[in-house]
Amino acid sequence: MKNVSPIDSAWLRRAVELAARGIGSTHPNPVVGCVITNRDGHPVGEGFHAYPGGPHAEVVALRMAGSQARGGTAYVTLEPCNHTGRTGPCADALIEAGISRVVYAVPDPNKQASGGGEKLRSKNIVVEEGVLRDEAEAVNQVWLHSVRTGRPFVTWKFATTLDGRSAAPDRSSKWITGPLARADVHRKRAECDAIAVGTQTVLDDDPELTVRDEHDVPASRQPLRVVVGDRPIPPTARVRNDRAETLLLPTHDPAEVLRQLDDHQIRHLWLEGGPTLAAAFLRAGLVDQIVAYVAPAMLGSGFSAVGDLGAESIDQLRRFNLADVTRLGDDVRLTLTPLGGN
Amino acid sequence: MKNVSPIDSAWLRRAVELAARGIGSTHPNPVVGCVITNRDGHPVGEGFHAYPGGPHAEVVALRMAGSQARGGTAYVTLEPCNHTGRTGPCADALIEAGISRVVYAVPDPNKQASGGGEKLRSKNIVVEEGVLRDEAEAVNQVWLHSVRTGRPFVTWKFATTLDGRSAAPDRSSKWITGPLARADVHRKRAECDAIAVGTQTVLDDDPELTVRDEHDVPASRQPLRVVVGDRPIPPTARVRNDRAETLLLPTHDPAEVLRQLDDHQIRHLWLEGGPTLAAAFLRAGLVDQIVAYVAPAMLGSGFSAVGDLGAESIDQLRRFNLADVTRLGDDVRLTLTPLGGN
Repeated sequence: MKNVSPIDSAWLRRAVELAARGIGSTHPNPVVGCVITNRDGHPVGEGFHAYPGGPHAEVVALRMAGSQARGGTAYVTLEPCNHTGRTGPCADALIEAGISRVVYAVPDPNKQASGGGEKLRSKNIVVEEGVLRDEAEAVNQVWLHSVRTGRPFVTWKFATTLDGRSAAPDRSSKWITGPLARADVHRKRAECDAIAVGTQTVLDDDPELTVRDEHDVPASRQPLRVVVGDRPIPPTARVRNDRAETLLLPTHDPAEVLRQLDDHQIRHLWLEGGPTLAAAFLRAGLVDQIVAYVAPAMLGSGFSAVGDLGAESIDQLRRFNLADVTRLGDDVRLTLTPLGGN
Repeated sequence: MKNVSPIDSAWLRRAVELAARGIGSTHPNPVVGCVITNRDGHPVGEGFHAYPGGPHAEVVALRMAGSQARGGTAYVTLEPCNHTGRTGPCADALIEAGISRVVYAVPDPNKQASGGGEKLRSKNIVVEEGVLRDEAEAVNQVWLHSVRTGRPFVTWKFATTLDGRSAAPDRSSKWITGPLARADVHRKRAECDAIAVGTQTVLDDDPELTVRDEHDVPASRQPLRVVVGDRPIPPTARVRNDRAETLLLPTHDPAEVLRQLDDHQIRHLWLEGGPTLAAAFLRAGLVDQIVAYVAPAMLGSGFSAVGDLGAESIDQLRRFNLADVTRLGDDVRLTLTPLGGN
């Protein structure tokens, strides 16, 4: 175990809080938070990365700190970048501001942008890496997963009755869950940069696949809508309206879907079903998180959220880690993650 | 609203706590708790009804109070009985002890035993009824339901995967849930006086249907085992062993099952399935509580906990009230009650 000063941990924890404010709006960039303390250890600046093309967390915090950054410490959730993209390298900004020490949690896994720590060291800045790493990894889970694996992080969402029905025998499914659960779905959709369904779901439910508020008003930023499968989608389908971009992927291969979405720089795919698509992703081991909304209701017949997984006997049960249980009005949200983590 | 003294409420609340200690061991009797305060309002005795044939709560509390009961108040969760059964009438015991005031929560709905309040009044004892009634009703829910409706209170229990499978395609189902959930099932079985399954479940799973501890040691008091249906049960079936009594009911009518169990003075039936039996009880509106253990696991095929309920469309969804959500290790227990209460 690393011997870490509680003061360093505390400022990095604040930086993680700041980073979290960017969740859902920074794609394809990571979320990053930064705190600057002056040479006496007092906080003089803080910031987070808010949207792609916007200033990086370090730059926001340095602007707030001004000349008080000189001789101070920068606490950053992710290794400062050494890369000129839409903004200049953060490593250079920290050097120019006269920062004398940089403490960051997670080394940048992005080949293109890494090397910031090394550059800072070459300018005789004290650099410490790995402080509060678990918390900083968690806040950036989606982006780190995407960069490390080369494919989007996949969250599979479904709503179900307690007897495991996601639609009635006539395929109707509106509404199994109540208003609080449905609002939660829209909040969580908003944190993703793509929403996928299969063609069967488009034909059955004609979903719009947009992020909307409780008055049904669409959000200004909309995830990419993705329709997987090769059945024809009618021109009048709501998924074809102009409220968001739509990508039709006439394939049945989840790995191919994710490859194409990676080409579109998609970091977090929100998979809404139906059962065939969900089963294909599960069988391929390509589900990173399951968010299930369970209604206290019984149907007794109809369609399950997931199709055949090839299980014949109970010892072929696919188990997951129960990461969270939250009551939402009359419904319950369960969040599952793969056993053994990602 | 009744104008109730907070002191009276506080002592009745204590009496409700005491009553709760009898849950599961007093069948076919109610649970009852009693507190005695002396003429200065200080507590001098308390007790609860622990097992059928044992002393009633009032008698236990009066014994503890001794001569200090004279001129005091008795707080009782249920109207003191006016009936000589295995023990003498509690109303007489309170009169003989010189109690000058009796405060009770719930009038006795049992024709045979009621009239205690009236008898006390006839002896110039001050009697107040209905204090803290809701809490006292809740602790005695099962018994009150059974006496008022003339049939046992029915709790349907099932274990399921998150995709609604209670058994794999080969009918195997051991174990969907983990040890904490299974231990919880045994604790809850112990609170009931009968456990029922259908013949199909006996043939598929060969369950013993006993209450056992974590070392698989059977409890000294065992609920009646009930097997519903007319398929023959092999002589070697575990449900036929000598660890508990077993009642075979060769019928398919839930109302008839409950009528026969009422003849056996069963107050709380724990219904364990399978899907056909569960569906029959649900369709008949004879389920008073649902306890579902949900595992964070997927099967993708197999058998649901409940059979056909006749629903064709989502508007035929049977909704329930979500009374409780509790995490038990890796599993989640959901408790549902009928909408609008019993």
